[in-house]
Amino acid sequence: MKSICAIEGVECAGIREGKYGLALVRAAGTAAAVFTRNRVRAACIDLMRERIKKGFLEALVANSGCANAFTGKRGLQDAESMAMIAGDAMGIDPTRVAVASTGVIGRYLNLPLIERQCRFLAGRLARDGQAEEAAAGAIMTTDLVQKHALARRETFAVGGICKGSGMIAPNMGTMLAFIYTDASLRPEDLSSSLRTAAERTFNRVVVDGDTSTNDIAICTATGHAGRVNPAEFSEALEECCRSLAIQIAADGEGATKLIEVRVRGATGEGVAAEIARTIVASPLVKTAVYGEDPNWGRVMAAAGRAGHDFDPERVTLWIGEGEARVPLVERGAILADPARAKRAMQQNRVVFELDLGEGGGEASAWGCDLTERYVEINGRYTT
Amino acid sequence: MKSICAIEGVECAGIREGKYGLALVRAAGTAAAVFTRNRVRAACIDLMRERIKKGFLEALVANSGCANAFTGKRGLQDAESMAMIAGDAMGIDPTRVAVASTGVIGRYLNLPLIERQCRFLAGRLARDGQAEEAAAGAIMTTDLVQKHALARRETFAVGGICKGSGMIAPNMGTMLAFIYTDASLRPEDLSSSLRTAAERTFNRVVVDGDTSTNDIAICTATGHAGRVNPAEFSEALEECCRSLAIQIAADGEGATKLIEVRVRGATGEGVAAEIARTIVASPLVKTAVYGEDPNWGRVMAAAGRAGHDFDPERVTLWIGEGEARVPLVERGAILADPARAKRAMQQNRVVFELDLGEGGGEASAWGCDLTERYVEINGRYTT
Repeated sequence: MKSICAIEGVECAGIREGKYGLALVRAAGTAAAVFTRNRVRAACIDLMRERIKKGFLEALVANSGCANAFTGKRGLQDAESMAMIAGDAMGIDPTRVAVASTGVIGRYLNLPLIERQCRFLAGRLARDGQAEEAAAGAIMTTDLVQKHALARRETFAVGGICKGSGMIAPNMGTMLAFIYTDASLRPEDLSSSLRTAAERTFNRVVVDGDTSTNDIAICTATGHAGRVNPAEFSEALEECCRSLAIQIAADGEGATKLIEVRVRGATGEGVAAEIARTIVASPLVKTAVYGEDPNWGRVMAAAGRAGHDFDPERVTLWIGEGEARVPLVERGAILADPARAKRAMQQNRVVFELDLGEGGGEASAWGCDLTERYVEINGRYTT
Repeated sequence: MKSICAIEGVECAGIREGKYGLALVRAAGTAAAVFTRNRVRAACIDLMRERIKKGFLEALVANSGCANAFTGKRGLQDAESMAMIAGDAMGIDPTRVAVASTGVIGRYLNLPLIERQCRFLAGRLARDGQAEEAAAGAIMTTDLVQKHALARRETFAVGGICKGSGMIAPNMGTMLAFIYTDASLRPEDLSSSLRTAAERTFNRVVVDGDTSTNDIAICTATGHAGRVNPAEFSEALEECCRSLAIQIAADGEGATKLIEVRVRGATGEGVAAEIARTIVASPLVKTAVYGEDPNWGRVMAAAGRAGHDFDPERVTLWIGEGEARVPLVERGAILADPARAKRAMQQNRVVFELDLGEGGGEASAWGCDLTERYVEINGRYTT
């Protein structure tokens, strides 16, 4: 399994000790990041918002088990110490080390543990599948599977790893994602491509509607492949981010099915995205998908509370995709064939397609069903 | 059990046949209503938005089992027919009959059934506890218990019944509530009192964040008790609505615990209300309460994503109430005593109190825990 290690100039390593994992990635280059919009931010987010302004990074240190969020001034000092420890271990200027954390909120970092883990990993940085699996595994919390994605183009590639399973909601960042490319890009182009890609992918995944305090997506461009066409790069970056985003949705806490909602015919892309996200976030839609219950009225009810006017008489709604696509409503008229609709729900991937008949705006959003297992996982998290 | 039947001038009756219930209430007087803000509205809501403008009602007919939502022009005709049938049965001008529906979306009303039920009930209207229980029972869907409330004052009283258990979110109305008072009030005063009371009570209950297509709260003032002090009336109406709202939260689908979130020290009441609602709606807070896991970081994370700036360093957070109240955070400093906090969560009613230290705004919101049973109930609803 190779994604970030497919990118020239990237080396990584990872270790997990019980709930406490640590990943190091060494990759020097132009860098950009997007962050959580939550007002209660982790200390590492506050640090990175400043640090990324220089547009250049040499390495990354990320820990799981402790979010270092709601930890005040001490938390900020701890985040800086974490960068210092990692920089020292790798022989890198600490101000060029990115820091990310995920785990329980309201607890302080265990710096002696982090120091021991950094020293252990610094000598083991490598550019191979095993090192990448160790790094991707180290940042997991309730994730059941690792998440890797690679978008290859003729002259360059974009690869990423990420983690995310709960506290996932439509908002900038939405999880930890570390993306690398060998393309050479100006910081402002990289930043603008990352913003657009995050908006169309990570920000359209909803597991539970809870926005994390720690979300961050960082992209570093090592430049080994030289200059590239910016439009082609944006498209490849979006492909890589979309793959990671869908992997997060499919691995949502307790999920048994991936839900994809495609909205078109909206007055704009933003409107389509808000409606798609509201549907995919609805607990009633999510439980109906889990129960394979073709209760499509819940899809319409969720669309209606997204805050945008549309004419129910113009709406067309399908369930399923390809040959198995079943129309439920056609320009406002109810066509529902419960038996066929139920079959379309008996898949691992359930697609709803909604045409509002108002304009040319379209967007997709991804989520997962809501199961008893989600409740079980989150009822006993800190213990 | 008497609440609306404690009000002079109110008679009622109800019947339930499997999933299909019908309630009639006869009460002539000044009337006001508040409605769902969902863009996809039930036909009865569209009808009532027009009908309530006259500020006077003589009766109400409400059915459960079919929401008559997303049913287009035929749905609107059906809602009018339902009022006509009920008016005919009771010998009342049909334009003075309020109509409300709750149940599955995207299905047409069974008018022959409604006609049979109306004719049966019209001769059985009564002002006693048995009739009121039949009416309150008839409008239940996934509700496990009936909901009645009575606020008595020296010269008048306000009584109400309501239903609501799922598809409950912060938005105007939020369920079916039928409230009666013997106070005599001008339509505009009644309307303004109802709006304020609904904003502070029904709109602050969240079960699952899904806003119904059919929410309505109607208040009829029979006037038998004569003129009253408007401020005293508003206060009594709010008491009655608050009791109904808390009963909805406690009877949330699958709930084992009531959650109350009190926010103070905000820059305004609206800000406090939005933060309180965001906390009480958070699936992660809800599952932590279910698991009796004192994971208070989730409360802070939810507060942070409510969309209002505040300084985490000024925040104080308690769990529990009265003598069992435990401070978790004091002006930003973490005090958490997990054992004491856990005890505070082992109650049927779990209270979080958050002081933002910014101003004088305060508000409360109510919800319930998220359990495996919610998933079970909603995974198989239409079948």
